[in-house]
Amino acid sequence: MRTTTGWRLNGPATLRRTELKRRDLRPDDLAVRIDYCGVCHSDLHAIRHHDSSAGEPLVPGHEFTGVVTETGSAVTRFAPGDPVAVGNIVDSCGECAMCRAGQENFCRAFPTLTYGGTDRQDGSTTLGGFSREYVVREGFAHPLPPGLDAAAAAPLLCAGVTVWEPLRALGVGPGSRVAVAGLGGLGHLAVRMAVALGATTSVISRSAGKAGDARRLGAQGFVVSTDPAQLAAARDTFDVVIDTVSAPHDLGPYLRLVAMDGTLSHLGHLGPVTVDTMDLLVGRKKLSSAGSGGRPATAAMLEFCAEHGITAEIELLPSARVNEALDRLGRNDVRYRFVLDLSDLD
Amino acid sequence: MRTTTGWRLNGPATLRRTELKRRDLRPDDLAVRIDYCGVCHSDLHAIRHHDSSAGEPLVPGHEFTGVVTETGSAVTRFAPGDPVAVGNIVDSCGECAMCRAGQENFCRAFPTLTYGGTDRQDGSTTLGGFSREYVVREGFAHPLPPGLDAAAAAPLLCAGVTVWEPLRALGVGPGSRVAVAGLGGLGHLAVRMAVALGATTSVISRSAGKAGDARRLGAQGFVVSTDPAQLAAARDTFDVVIDTVSAPHDLGPYLRLVAMDGTLSHLGHLGPVTVDTMDLLVGRKKLSSAGSGGRPATAAMLEFCAEHGITAEIELLPSARVNEALDRLGRNDVRYRFVLDLSDLD
Repeated sequence: MRTTTGWRLNGPATLRRTELKRRDLRPDDLAVRIDYCGVCHSDLHAIRHHDSSAGEPLVPGHEFTGVVTETGSAVTRFAPGDPVAVGNIVDSCGECAMCRAGQENFCRAFPTLTYGGTDRQDGSTTLGGFSREYVVREGFAHPLPPGLDAAAAAPLLCAGVTVWEPLRALGVGPGSRVAVAGLGGLGHLAVRMAVALGATTSVISRSAGKAGDARRLGAQGFVVSTDPAQLAAARDTFDVVIDTVSAPHDLGPYLRLVAMDGTLSHLGHLGPVTVDTMDLLVGRKKLSSAGSGGRPATAAMLEFCAEHGITAEIELLPSARVNEALDRLGRNDVRYRFVLDLSDLD
Repeated sequence: MRTTTGWRLNGPATLRRTELKRRDLRPDDLAVRIDYCGVCHSDLHAIRHHDSSAGEPLVPGHEFTGVVTETGSAVTRFAPGDPVAVGNIVDSCGECAMCRAGQENFCRAFPTLTYGGTDRQDGSTTLGGFSREYVVREGFAHPLPPGLDAAAAAPLLCAGVTVWEPLRALGVGPGSRVAVAGLGGLGHLAVRMAVALGATTSVISRSAGKAGDARRLGAQGFVVSTDPAQLAAARDTFDVVIDTVSAPHDLGPYLRLVAMDGTLSHLGHLGPVTVDTMDLLVGRKKLSSAGSGGRPATAAMLEFCAEHGITAEIELLPSARVNEALDRLGRNDVRYRFVLDLSDLD
């Protein structure tokens, strides 16, 4: 086994620096020195809901960038020194219809998650990117395109592909009218990507205070969702509404902003949601949901972002401040994504 | 005022033959002798939920065919003797974005329903097609194409356009894989239309007993929804699932039959429905809802049905047996649509 250092959950809601083991390289493995890892809402969710009685360690982190330090004997796509990026999936069955279609995120046998997953060969629990080293099958690592800042690019690997998938699946391009509800980690990337795809893009936010940021990110429109007059004026005007709001909420007001034959795409797993079929029926609207992405989509998204200079707006913190970052994230006090600098683990 | 005869709600859940008044013809009105009127589930719903304390009369019926007997001074498209068909909408504002787009069924100011609606000029309550005569604006009457049996065509005006709209909006055509859940008044027409559109079509039914009918209607596949093995085998295999089941039910099992990027379209107004976002997320599926249709879609549907010889399978009853028909419909004892012959009202 290899030894590294990382941040592991220790007691309620506190991560503590500790020594971690990584597997010895298999023939198709890479060892990656992690330089930067984004802090995702789902990390917070995992920490809050971790069942410590099961005895499984929790090391969060599933959007990271770094440098290849060592390669297994059969690795062909990477060499030591290559900049690399890893998202929230590190393996899948490779044989089901979804895997064959390049949608490993929907693998029928369930994909192996970057942390809290079960390794398909040795059955061990995967430990995430809040650490200095990761060992990953080369097929689930992506070359980090030149020109992208490695720290600001880390959030593309989860937040980025999560907004990219619905934008592409719904055919967003020049002429599309897109609204992004919620200007946070996901939302600000959705705005940048929608703008770069050529869409007329608006932001829907509870707070008028984010209008300046929305404009700076490229949005032409802004709808204050707590103002009934603004909601009424925007009714039926967007081909696609990307709903990035993670707290449970009524989807009706967003559905009513969708134009005839348009789609409301909710991101992330809200659990059961209730919709009034009348909100779908009148205007022949659709409800969809998206989260994460497959490998081809991730690769295409990274290329697109490199071409258009898109990365996340981040607050970069030394990893020693991870608990502070999580605490602030829990209060939505971040513009727009925390990224941990893991060099302080050396 | 004109005088005619029809079937009006009288006491709980019983229709009684009675004299009815129709307005004198306005310049753009037609008088229609109603020959045939289908019996729709929503008629039953209207009867069961009618608030008699409000004092408004209820005469159901919103899918009928007949013959023009008289025309107003400004009518241009019809002459006495023309076969004609009317659906569930007899007027709309004509000015909103939905009306301008030919989606009068989604009229912002609410369309005038064929019965239980409020006439836009005199404020009277509209009385439906369970009667011998109707007076309707010519713009909301459709020429009945030659070759269609007038009795069996009546259900096309509501049931037909309700299934046609989602099939067309979702792009069903050659190569599409379509499943129709529920083989009733709506379902059997959906099967016939999907088959005629060139789709590979299956029926999903609780009962294996309908497999023969499904085949006869043109369906190639049949899935018994109470058999977990059949549901599992059909998972993710249909681009479009048209759900015609009117009773409240779990949408999850149908969503799981939808293929990657496909759509579950629920017909009719179920009210609030709950879906697990995971059933949408895995496979990037969409939920939509449909009901009724606009005038251009209705005209296109009638043309398509005439070209392909599509009408409903009906049980034709003299209108004096309307209460028996409603009673049997309430027990789902009909294959597949009751149509009333109104000539017994003369």
